[in-house]
Amino acid sequence: MTILDGKKTAQDLKEEIKVAVSEIKKNGKRLPHLAAVLVGDDGASLTYVGSKVRSCDYVGFDSTLIKLDESTTEETLLKKIDELNQDDQLDGYIVQLPLPKHIDEEKILLAIDPTKDVDGFHPSNFGRMALEMDAFIPATPFGIIELLERYDIETSGKHCVVVGRSHIVGRPISILMSQKGPAGNATVTLAHSRTQNLAELTKNADIVVMALGIPEYLTAEMVKEGATIIDVGITRVADVNHPKGYVIKGDVAYDEVAQKSSAITPVPGGVGPMTIAMLLKNTLFAYQRKG
Amino acid sequence: MTILDGKKTAQDLKEEIKVAVSEIKKNGKRLPHLAAVLVGDDGASLTYVGSKVRSCDYVGFDSTLIKLDESTTEETLLKKIDELNQDDQLDGYIVQLPLPKHIDEEKILLAIDPTKDVDGFHPSNFGRMALEMDAFIPATPFGIIELLERYDIETSGKHCVVVGRSHIVGRPISILMSQKGPAGNATVTLAHSRTQNLAELTKNADIVVMALGIPEYLTAEMVKEGATIIDVGITRVADVNHPKGYVIKGDVAYDEVAQKSSAITPVPGGVGPMTIAMLLKNTLFAYQRKG
Repeated sequence: MTILDGKKTAQDLKEEIKVAVSEIKKNGKRLPHLAAVLVGDDGASLTYVGSKVRSCDYVGFDSTLIKLDESTTEETLLKKIDELNQDDQLDGYIVQLPLPKHIDEEKILLAIDPTKDVDGFHPSNFGRMALEMDAFIPATPFGIIELLERYDIETSGKHCVVVGRSHIVGRPISILMSQKGPAGNATVTLAHSRTQNLAELTKNADIVVMALGIPEYLTAEMVKEGATIIDVGITRVADVNHPKGYVIKGDVAYDEVAQKSSAITPVPGGVGPMTIAMLLKNTLFAYQRKG
Repeated sequence: MTILDGKKTAQDLKEEIKVAVSEIKKNGKRLPHLAAVLVGDDGASLTYVGSKVRSCDYVGFDSTLIKLDESTTEETLLKKIDELNQDDQLDGYIVQLPLPKHIDEEKILLAIDPTKDVDGFHPSNFGRMALEMDAFIPATPFGIIELLERYDIETSGKHCVVVGRSHIVGRPISILMSQKGPAGNATVTLAHSRTQNLAELTKNADIVVMALGIPEYLTAEMVKEGATIIDVGITRVADVNHPKGYVIKGDVAYDEVAQKSSAITPVPGGVGPMTIAMLLKNTLFAYQRKG
């Protein structure tokens, strides 16, 4: 059984990006530059954004954190976005979600210049991806593709069941894995809350991607011997025995499923760490595309 | 067994659109206006475009056919497209594909103003559709959704196997049927040329959508008793006994499969006629959206 080590793979990727950046530096050129916009003081968002900024520093990118007050109006945020769109020293930026309730997320998303949309959430990027044009691919599915590729998991002709149809994970990974590209050519079934007999589907799958958000939902009896298991779930489960008061659980009952699978991502340390690495990769793409 | 009569349904739709147009006329307003651009003299394309223009006349839309010479340069076509984008008396337009080989189709596609892209092929529309925003949906998958809805075919929780991953049929219908919208909430498997054991998949499907382009590929032994069968295939097969020298065949061995299915689209007269009706519907949407 192979553990698909996202922590190590993400680290490898960061080292590769670091090398690319030092090459840029050596040539005396402007450095890649990522900005992150954070509105309000949501604890988890602060953690994510902080981690993204530190990763930029690590690989040698310029980074800017734009922290706006919880009470920021939609108009002010749109003005900020317009500035970022105009800034030709900036390669890409993200607007950390969720936004405060008085701000229309769709409106903000649509205001982002698609050529700077390194999160790949703008419909123009999403459509380009689905139509197999050059595009920014959302970081989580992009990370899954990268992991499958680096561990040489055969996907062509395999049956892959994706559980969960979110816009940022389930939907895009189901599209990518059934296309002709890397980690592609799989026969993909997209399952979701309305799916009947889910266990029957997963039991016949060569690859299962769990992106449901229900801790330890996928049990050993639901998977085939020798399957590859990708776990995107990250749920905090209360645990008084833990110093933090909680533990992070994936969508997969890891211990029992690992014994039956040929390859599996742990949680934490699987898909999660890949996400930031792929955001950096998208930023480097944006930089290179600008020329 | 129900025959999903696309010819009749398309006619119903056209009558509904006709009523909407006469309402517009009565109010003394500008009529909906569709333009079609045809480059070269491809016989099939001429037939399709002609039929689209006649349908516009039938429902009372204004229509413009722009016929350009086979030798038209990419530059000239782009200039034409720019004109159409600027024309505020025009609600939508299509560029009939395929284009001559010296013209880059992707470049032309991307030049179309997404708000006039009634074919729904622009990545911005495709992304909006995939992300469940208001969008123009490509006519063929849109027609399938409309047929399933009007015949009250239950899709929620059903297993649907789509065969073929083209950008204009297989991919979009696989997305639409697994979303929450009309004829949605199905568990969808997208199969294609690399799929192994296709018959095993289709045999377990409640709904099969064939969009492969191989005549009579789906046989009775490949389907479940009581399944719903949607046939998107339209292939000309040589037939000396026919006055035209060919007959039109779908991807489904109709006679044998019909006996086993609970509902089926014939070819011709199934999905085909729906396509133009949905193009008209998209044009009416474009008109209404302009306000």
